[in-house]
This record gives sequence, C-alpha cells and structure tokens, in this order.
Amino acid sequence: MTVTTRYTQGLALLERIDGEAGQRVIDSLQAIAPDLARYVIEFPFGDIYQRPGLDLQQREIATVAALTALGHCQPQLAVHIHGALNVGCTADEVIETIIQMAVYAGFPAALNGMMTAKTVFIERGLLPDRSEVEARRP
Amino acid sequence: MTVTTRYTQGLALLERIDGEAGQRVIDSLQAIAPDLARYVIEFPFGDIYQRPGLDLQQREIATVAALTALGHCQPQLAVHIHGALNVGCTADEVIETIIQMAVYAGFPAALNGMMTAKTVFIERGLLPDRSEVEARRP
Amino acid sequence: MTVTTRYTQGLALLERIDGEAGQRVIDSLQAIAPDLARYVIEFPFGDIYQRPGLDLQQREIATVAALTALGHCQPQLAVHIHGALNVGCTADEVIETIIQMAVYAGFPAALNGMMTAKTVFIERGLLPDRSEVEARRP
Amino acid sequence: MTVTTRYTQGLALLERIDGEAGQRVIDSLQAIAPDLARYVIEFPFGDIYQRPGLDLQQREIATVAALTALGHCQPQLAVHIHGALNVGCTADEVIETIIQMAVYAGFPAALNGMMTAKTVFIERGLLPDRSEVEARRP
Amino acid sequence: MTVTTRYTQGLALLERIDGEAGQRVIDSLQAIAPDLARYVIEFPFGDIYQRPGLDLQQREIATVAALTALGHCQPQLAVHIHGALNVGCTADEVIETIIQMAVYAGFPAALNGMMTAKTVFIERGLLPDRSEVEARRP
Amino acid sequence: MTVTTRYTQGLALLERIDGEAGQRVIDSLQAIAPDLARYVIEFPFGDIYQRPGLDLQQREIATVAALTALGHCQPQLAVHIHGALNVGCTADEVIETIIQMAVYAGFPAALNGMMTAKTVFIERGLLPDRSEVEARRP
Repeated sequence: MTVTTRYTQGLALLERIDGEAGQRVIDSLQAIAPDLARYVIEFPFGDIYQRPGLDLQQREIATVAALTALGHCQPQLAVHIHGALNVGCTADEVIETIIQMAVYAGFPAALNGMMTAKTVFIERGLLPDRSEVEARRP
Repeated sequence: MTVTTRYTQGLALLERIDGEAGQRVIDSLQAIAPDLARYVIEFPFGDIYQRPGLDLQQREIATVAALTALGHCQPQLAVHIHGALNVGCTADEVIETIIQMAVYAGFPAALNGMMTAKTVFIERGLLPDRSEVEARRP
Repeated sequence: MTVTTRYTQGLALLERIDGEAGQRVIDSLQAIAPDLARYVIEFPFGDIYQRPGLDLQQREIATVAALTALGHCQPQLAVHIHGALNVGCTADEVIETIIQMAVYAGFPAALNGMMTAKTVFIERGLLPDRSEVEARRP
Repeated sequence: MTVTTRYTQGLALLERIDGEAGQRVIDSLQAIAPDLARYVIEFPFGDIYQRPGLDLQQREIATVAALTALGHCQPQLAVHIHGALNVGCTADEVIETIIQMAVYAGFPAALNGMMTAKTVFIERGLLPDRSEVEARRP
Repeated sequence: MTVTTRYTQGLALLERIDGEAGQRVIDSLQAIAPDLARYVIEFPFGDIYQRPGLDLQQREIATVAALTALGHCQPQLAVHIHGALNVGCTADEVIETIIQMAVYAGFPAALNGMMTAKTVFIERGLLPDRSEVEARRP
Repeated sequence: MTVTTRYTQGLALLERIDGEAGQRVIDSLQAIAPDLARYVIEFPFGDIYQRPGLDLQQREIATVAALTALGHCQPQLAVHIHGALNVGCTADEVIETIIQMAVYAGFPAALNGMMTAKTVFIERGLLPDRSEVEARRP
C-alpha cells in the first residue's frame, strides 16, 4: 500500500464514518496545521479503521466508550456519536455505551458524555423512544 | 431496603444536598436517558451518601477535592460546591480544598476549580471575606 | 426488582462474565470493604450489564476500550480481557480494540494495555494466530 | 515568614503527618533531586497544610479522595493513608472516602485505592471491625 | 532568598513570560483566593522557572506538551502558548510540540490543543507560513 | 515517501533515539500484536520524529514532560529518559523537566517520574552531580 493509498482510502472512510462533522475537523486545521489533518486521515482512518477484526459499529462503540471515559474530548465525542449513528449503531447503543462508563470512569464522565449525545441527537432530529425505559422507572 | 426505598431516600438526599442544581441534572436527562438519572439518585445518593462513617460535610469536601483534581468535571464540581455550602461547609472550606489540589493535581486543575467556585459564589451572592488573607500577603 | 434480586442476578452475571478473576476481586475486598464488593455486584453487574441495548460482547469491547484509554486500571483491564473472552469475544477483537486506543489515548496507553492482554493470553494458554498479520508486514 | 521558616515548619508538619512514610519519600530523592524534596517540604507542608480553614483531618480526607480519583498515584496514596490515620482519621473514614470515589472516578479507581489501603492497614496491624457492615449485607 | 524575593522575582518573571494573559489569571483570583494567586507567583515563577538547567524556551515547550497531553487545561495552555511565543519560541515550535502529543496522549488531545493554539495565534495576528508544509501534502 | 521508507526510516530513528529500550518494546509485541509494533515505528518515528521544526532534544523534553504529567506511562517514560540522554539531553535537563511537572500535574506525578528517572540513571551508571544544588539547600 502506498502513502497515497493510505491518504485516499483514509479520506474516503473518514467521510463515510464522520460525514460533515469529520470534514469540519479537517477544515479547521488547514490554516494552522494541515499536516495534523493529514495524520488524522492517514493513521486513524487510513490505518486503524481499515483493519479487519472489528467492524465499524464495534469500532465506534469502542471509541464512544473511550472518549466518554477520558472526559476531556467532548468535541471528538460529538464527532464519533455522529460516526456511530452513520455506520449503523442505534441511538440506544450509543446511550448504553455512555451509561456504562459511569462504572469505569464515574458518573460525571457519563453525565458529560450524555449531554454531548443529547446535543448530537437534537442536531439530527433524533431522540430515542424511551417510553419502555420510562415504564420501568420506580 | 427495597429498590423503591433507595430511590425515594436517594431523591430526598439529592434534593437536600444539591438543591436546584441537582434537580437540573436530573431534568436534563429525562428526554435522553432517564435511567441514568435514576442511577444518579439510587447509587450515589441512595447508597453512598446514605452511609455512616463520614458526615455530609466530609463527603462534600472529598467530592470537591476529587472533581477539582480530575479536572474534566466542571459542571459536576459546580453542583457539588453548591452541595458543600448547602450541607454546612463554609466558603473558606471549599476554597481551601480547591487550593490544596494544586499540590496533588497541579495548578491548572486548582485554577479551573477556583473559577468554577467563583461562578457558584457569585450566583449565590456570596464572596468570602478575604480581608484577613489579604493582610497576610507580602 | 428487589435489592436481593439485584445482588443475586449481579453475582450470577459477574461469575459468568469474569469467572475466577471476578471472584478474586470480590474475595480481596472481604476483609476491608465488603460493601464495596457488594456494590460491584449490585451496580455494574446487577444494574448495568443486565440492561438490554448492548449484548455482553459489545459491553466488554466498550469496557476494554475505556480501561485501556484510562491507563491506570491494569488489574481491572486484565479482569475484563478475561471477561471479553468468556462472553465470546475473540482474542483478535480484544487486540484490535486495544490497538485502536493508540488513536484516542496515545501509544503508551495502547502498549500498556497490550502487555496486560499478553499476560492474560499467556495465562489462558492462548496467543492468537498472527501469521496473516505477519504476512502483511512490510 | 522567612524561607527557612517555611522549610523548618514544613519538615515538622511532614514528620507529624506522614511519619516514616514521608521521610522515605524525602530520602529517596536525595541522590537525584534534593530540590524536589525541598519543594515537597516547603510548598505542600510549609505553605498549604499550614493554612487555617481546614483541619488536618479534613485535609487528609481531601487528599485521599483526590489521589484515589487520579488513580496513578498509589505510592502517594499509601503515604497519605498513613497520614490520615496519623492525624486522627479513623480507618472507616479512609475506607468511606475511597468507596465514595467509585461515584466520581469509577469502580477501578476505588478498587485500586482500596487495595492500597489494605496494604497500609496490614502494615499497621490494623483492619477495621466490619462486623456491623457485614450484618447489613443482603 | 527571602519570601519577598520569591514573590518579587516571581512576579517579574510571570510578567515577562505570560504578559497580559498571566496578569489576567492573577486578577481573576483577587476576589476569591488571592493566596492562590500568590502561590502561582511564588512557586511556579518564583521557584521553578527561576532555576538553571533549562532555558525558558525549553520550559515552555515542556509546559505546552504537558498541558496539551493533560487535556483539561485549555485556559492554561492558551496562557503558555502566549508564554512560549513571548520567550522566543516560534509558532512552528508550538505547533510541532502539540502535533507530537498525538503520539502520547492521542489525537483528541492534540486536536483540542491545536484549536487553542489557533485562537492564540489569531489573537496575536499570527498564523505561520505553512506553504512549505502544504506543498508536501499528497 | 513510500510506506517502506516510513518503516525503514522510522526503525533507524527508533534505534538511534531509544536504543535497546526501544527494541525491547518492539520485541515484546511480536507474539501478540506485531502491527502495533509496526505502527510505533511508522507513526511516531517514521512520521513525527522525522519532522523539522523541533530537534530531537526538544522532542524528548516534550515527551518526558507529557509522560510525567500523564502519570500512567512509567515504562514509556523510562524508554524516553533513555532516549533523551541518547540524543544529547543532560541528566539535569531530564531532572528539571520532571521537577517542572509538579506545577502542572501535581507533586505525585513529579515524584513518580523522578523515581523512574532514578532507575534509568542507575541502570546507566549515571547520577548527576548535585553538589551545587545541595549547597543551596537551606
């Protein structure tokens, strides 16, 4: 695989996964650090997300989990919540992944991640049907 | 203790400790993840804060310390600075706890925590009398 | 659901997922903080892992991702690599999840996570067939 | 207050709080970075722990909370669990503070903190009477 | 060295390194925690940055690296990007330091650091000539 | 630049910077995740450390700072303290960088980093002449 292939295939996958949200990240870097934009395309999307072993839905669940747990990456979490939904994860899968982080990174990390998810869901005109969940509440 | 007791007692304690700030957290979750709101009530406030061994003032000092040190939880830190004051901690105790975090998590964490405290204190019409402290300055 | 149900169902799920590694965590707490052991059973395994929305394989991928990214939780990461394998994730899925964390938490976090995985795989007499991967190396 | 006073008063307070565990930290730095040892004495113990506004027991609760939550500071957590006990905190207060961190930093941080506490308690010939707690278990 | 000397020399160095951005930090603390402002002057700038062994440019590279990697300190990172430029680091050195953090703390930390750098560079009427970099892009 | 060039140039630079310590990292990955070893060579050493804008001494100061601040990467910090010394940083520059992290990440991070440096310095038969520093102690 050539360097050009990594870039071209990476850009195609970035567009497929993150859509407009990914493109905005790339654009925001052009005036100051276009090489960092290039690395974003080449390494995460040209190398890692191209790999077999996990499908894109599994990869996005892993990423949403990690970014929620780290806590200081809300802009990137928003991009990858878009990404998760774009590759076929359901809103409920995103919500469940974020809730689970209360166990491993604490409630504040889960709460902040959920507020980011809420913003993304509203942006996409999407709030999940929680009636079943509501019905279970004590 | 039944599940219902955990929820009911947790909600009562959340209201006592965090007041309106806690209620806003619960409300903000209703449309997207009401179960996470339920867990906030049941586990931290229904289980942990109900425990003997530390009083509520000690618990809030521990929480203000941890949230300041972690650094990525400013909304929750604001809620718990309200909480600390609501259960009887003084503004000076909150300030001292945050200053001490400069030792364990670095000055940036302490500075960001203090800016959050400043916002809460202003919201409550409360800025501590620092004249004695000022008098000690070189 | 009663409190007893949460505990009983949580313990059963902890045993299914984490097996001996989970039991060792519970045992290690008995002399000092048995209530913390009880909370481990009740909240993560009695509440969270019981939830629909993600299957156990997805949940373990999320957890392996988060613990690798956080970096300071190698004992728990080891337990959950066992857990991932116990619920049907492949060794390659664990490896891929850890590699992906190089993107989000940096290479040191991924390297330390991989060393923990290596220890678990050796303990289980399991090292994945990497011949296909090796053949791709430049 | 002169520089010498900060050092002298800081050293006295370090010895009172952390005892032998603190002295070992200072000794371990002499061959490589004695100035860092000096700063440990002057800033945390000569400046911060000298301040009014919190008593030493409150300060140690705040420190145990923060170090447990940060997760990568187990040696320092051990020193400050000694410190907490040395200034009059009970073993139960230390245990409660660490349990509470499950809420804010996740269960792995609380579990690792508790294992550090266990080591310290064993070193001191001290394991708390948990019979009352045990009696509450479902 | 007397306490007064630490404060006076620290304040002079803070003003030289961080300029207006540093002064704003000090001012923001006066109403709530002037002692924390004093410690910022005395310890980082009166003790640490006064030390031989590293020049100020090296110190600012180390600080920009650390604050980018930690991720939750964007206000302080902005102050120290000003500081790096004020003591003679080039914009390219700041950019390279931040890009390098993608390796050690992950891409999100590097991206957030770069957005902070962009804000500072715009504030100073300064965006580096990246034409050579652009020409290298595939 | 071809993919092969990135790998070849990266490996050469890894060997120059990290020497045996770097090779041990690569070797440790061969049985479990050789691709992660390849990425270590290609991205950090084939892409980032090849870049102009910072020399290798500046890059290692940035890395030692970041790894000390993050706190959960002691094995990698050891490798890069070797690296810093291999590319011409002095032991004092390493020590100063680590001390400075007390300001930004707290004393525990600085203390743990210093203990790692001590291990590396002893391994290399190198402890810096601190007599001048000692003479300044109060």
